[in-house]
Amino acid sequence: MDIEALKPVAQTLFDDIRTLSFDGVGVTRDSYGAGESAAADYLRDFARREGLHVEADGAANLVFRLPGERADVPAAWIGSHLDSVPQGGNFDGLAGVVAGLLCLLARRRAGGATAAPLGVIGLRGEESAWFGKAYLGSGAALGKLGAGDLALRHRRSGHTVAECMAALGADLASIRAQRPLFDKTRALAYLELHIEQGPVMVARGLPLAVVPGIRGNVRHNRITCSGEAGHSGAVPRWLRKDAMFAVAELIVRLDTRWRELLERGADLVVTTGVVGTSPEEHSVSRIPGTASFSFEARSKSVAVLEEFYRWMRAECEAVARERGVCFAFDARVDAAPATMDAGLSELLARQCRARGVPFDLVPSGAGHDAAQFANAGIPTGMLFIRNEHGSHNPREAMDLDDFMLGVGVLAAAVDSLRSGGVSEAARGSI
Amino acid sequence: MDIEALKPVAQTLFDDIRTLSFDGVGVTRDSYGAGESAAADYLRDFARREGLHVEADGAANLVFRLPGERADVPAAWIGSHLDSVPQGGNFDGLAGVVAGLLCLLARRRAGGATAAPLGVIGLRGEESAWFGKAYLGSGAALGKLGAGDLALRHRRSGHTVAECMAALGADLASIRAQRPLFDKTRALAYLELHIEQGPVMVARGLPLAVVPGIRGNVRHNRITCSGEAGHSGAVPRWLRKDAMFAVAELIVRLDTRWRELLERGADLVVTTGVVGTSPEEHSVSRIPGTASFSFEARSKSVAVLEEFYRWMRAECEAVARERGVCFAFDARVDAAPATMDAGLSELLARQCRARGVPFDLVPSGAGHDAAQFANAGIPTGMLFIRNEHGSHNPREAMDLDDFMLGVGVLAAAVDSLRSGGVSEAARGSI
Repeated sequence: MDIEALKPVAQTLFDDIRTLSFDGVGVTRDSYGAGESAAADYLRDFARREGLHVEADGAANLVFRLPGERADVPAAWIGSHLDSVPQGGNFDGLAGVVAGLLCLLARRRAGGATAAPLGVIGLRGEESAWFGKAYLGSGAALGKLGAGDLALRHRRSGHTVAECMAALGADLASIRAQRPLFDKTRALAYLELHIEQGPVMVARGLPLAVVPGIRGNVRHNRITCSGEAGHSGAVPRWLRKDAMFAVAELIVRLDTRWRELLERGADLVVTTGVVGTSPEEHSVSRIPGTASFSFEARSKSVAVLEEFYRWMRAECEAVARERGVCFAFDARVDAAPATMDAGLSELLARQCRARGVPFDLVPSGAGHDAAQFANAGIPTGMLFIRNEHGSHNPREAMDLDDFMLGVGVLAAAVDSLRSGGVSEAARGSI
Repeated sequence: MDIEALKPVAQTLFDDIRTLSFDGVGVTRDSYGAGESAAADYLRDFARREGLHVEADGAANLVFRLPGERADVPAAWIGSHLDSVPQGGNFDGLAGVVAGLLCLLARRRAGGATAAPLGVIGLRGEESAWFGKAYLGSGAALGKLGAGDLALRHRRSGHTVAECMAALGADLASIRAQRPLFDKTRALAYLELHIEQGPVMVARGLPLAVVPGIRGNVRHNRITCSGEAGHSGAVPRWLRKDAMFAVAELIVRLDTRWRELLERGADLVVTTGVVGTSPEEHSVSRIPGTASFSFEARSKSVAVLEEFYRWMRAECEAVARERGVCFAFDARVDAAPATMDAGLSELLARQCRARGVPFDLVPSGAGHDAAQFANAGIPTGMLFIRNEHGSHNPREAMDLDDFMLGVGVLAAAVDSLRSGGVSEAARGSI
C-alpha cells in the first residue's frame, strides 16, 4: 500500500475544495449550510468516482466505506469535520476527512485489507461559529443534542439547527429522541487527524504529535451589559453608566486573573472573540447604553473551568455595582474535557517511531469531535499535523509532506486493528 | 405679543415631526439625508401656510423671515439644527428651530416689530453621527468646510457630503471655495435655544440656563488595533496578540487617567461610543485579530484636550509594545471650544430675572452650531432648556412649559436688539 502515491490526489482535493469554498478572504463552509454542503457534495462525487460506497447518516454526516463491506460488523473509524469558521482556513477539519478517504483509497487500490473494516465519517457542524454551539453533527450522531440545541439559529440565515438538518434529510425524530445514530458498540476505535491549531509543533520542529487529551470549555455566546446612554459631552464622569467602559474593565479583570492562574500552574486560556457596542445606537458622541461580549474559557481541568467561571460571575457583579450597570447572560454552553485512549495513542506513537518521525505528546487546546466520541466511551485517538499561523484564519499553512506522513501513520494504525480491537493491536508488534 | 398662546402650535410641530421621523425606537433624521429633509419639508410647508418667507441658503439650510423684510440689513438670528442621531430624541436641535419660528410667528401676529429684523435658520448636518463630522451645515454656511469634509461618506448610504449637498441644490462651488454663504457682517447676533444634554439642570431645579461657553473636542472616529487572529483554544497567553484585550486595556487606561485629571480639577469628558471586534471575523472561538474604537475627549480648555490627546497616543504605543499589537488612526477631528458673548448672555439673564425664572450659568458640555458662529466672530448667545434623561436617546424629555418660558426669554431678547446691536441692547433697560 503506497500512501505517498496518493499525494497528488490529496493536493487536488484540497485545491478544489478551497476553490469552491473561497469567500474572497478565506474559506467559508457554514455548518449545515450551503458552504459545508458544497464540500460534502464534492467529496461524495469524488468518492463515487473512486468506487467507494457513500451514504449520509441520520444527521446528514457523510459516511464512506469500501464497497461491499458490511456496516454491521465492528469497524475502525476515521473522521473529522467538513465545516469551517467564516473566513477560515482550508485544512481545519477537511484534512482529517481527506486523510480518512486516502486510507480507504489505499485499501481499495491494494485490493482490500485483512484488518477490521474501515469507516470514514465527514462530520457536519463542528464549528460553534455558526449556531453558537459546536459538535452538532457528532452530537446528533451520538444522541447528545437537546431541544435547546435544535432551536439555535444560524448566525446569517436565521434558520434553526432543526430546520437546517431537516433540509438535508436528517432523521429529526431520532435526533430529538436522542437515539444514537452511530452504533458505538460496533466502533473498535475513532481516530482523527487534525492540524495543530496553535504554534507549539512549529516552534518545536515536530511534524506530527499524538494528542493525549482535549481541553474542555465553558462559554457564553453573549453577555450583555446595560448602562445608560447619554450625550458624550454633557454627562460628567460621576453620573455616567457607560456600558463599554464596564465591559472593558471586566475584560481587563479576566486577563489579569488569567495571568494569575497561569502563574499558579493552572491550564487555562481565555478569549472574548465577539465584543462590541450596539450598531443600532452607534455614535461617536453617545455614551454607550449597551455593550456585549462573548466569554470562553478552556482548560483540561473541569475544576479550573468551574472556579474561573464562578469568579467571572462574581466580577460581573462587582463591576455592575461599581459602575451602575447590569450584566445579562445567555445560556451557558459547556464542552467536557476528554482523555484519549492510551492504547490507541501508543499505536500512533509506535507508527511515528517506526518511520523515524520526530513527535511528542501535545495536548489539544482546541475542542474536537474526537472528544465527543471519547466521552461516549469509544476508544479514541488523535494525531496532530504541524501547521503554521494557527487556525480559524486564512493564513493556516500545513505542509503536504507533513500531512502525508500523518496519513501513513493513520493508515498503518487502522490496518493494525482487527476485530479484537485496540488492546489486541497495542499488544502486537508493528 | 402673547408667546404663551403659541403653545399649541409648538405641541403640534413637535408631535408631527416626531411622527414623521419615528424609526420604531426613537427619531432618525439623518444629516443631509431623507430624515432631515422630511423635517425640513414639513417646516417649509408650515411656515408658508403661516405666511412666512422661506428659502434655502447655499448649503441647503432653511432660512425663515417675515415677508417683505430685507435680507441685506443687519438682522438678529435664531437658529439650531434639523438633524438627529440614529434612534435619537425629538428635541435635540428641533427645539431651537421651533423656538425661532415661534418668535417669528409672534412678531407676525403682533403686526411686526420695531426691533432689528429677525432671521431664523434651520441648519442641516449638525450631528457627527452620520458623516463622522459635526457642523456641516453651519460650517458650509460660514465657509469652513474643507475638501476632506466634503469627501466624508454617509454611514448608511455611502454617499459623500458633497453628493448629498448637491442633491439638495447646494452651491458646491462656493462651499468648495470656502466662500461664506452667511454674511456675518450683517448678523447682529446669533442666538440658539437648546435642550440641556446632561443632568445638571434637572438636579438643580433650573428650568432655564444661560450658557457662558461650549466645550470643544478632539476625536478619532476609528482607531484600529491589529493583533493576530488565532484559535482560542490553541494559543497560550504568552504567544497571543489579542486585539480586543489590547483595546480593553487602553479604554481602562483612558478611564483611569480621566479620573486622575478630574481630581486635579481639569474639565474633561471621555467617551468611546463605537467599539468592537470585526463582524466579518466574528467567532466566539477566534482570538480577535482586529478591534476598533472611537475616541472623543471634550473640554473647555484647549490645553487639557491637547495634553490628554498626546497622552492617549503615548498609551497606545505602550499597549502596542506590551501586547504585540499596533494601532492605526484615521483623521483627527477637532472642534474648538467657544465663549459666548457676555452682552448677549446678560440680555438673556436679564429676561430670566424679569420673569422670576430660576436660572444659572451652565456651560455646555456638548458642542453646538453656536460655537461655529461664535468662533466666526458673531456675537453669540445660548439658552438651555431643562431636559430629563440626556439627549441622543429616545428618552429625552423636555417639558413644554419650560420650553415656552425659554421662547419668551428668546423673543424678548431679540426684540430688544435694534440696529445698534448687542452693546446698545445690553445697556438698555428691559
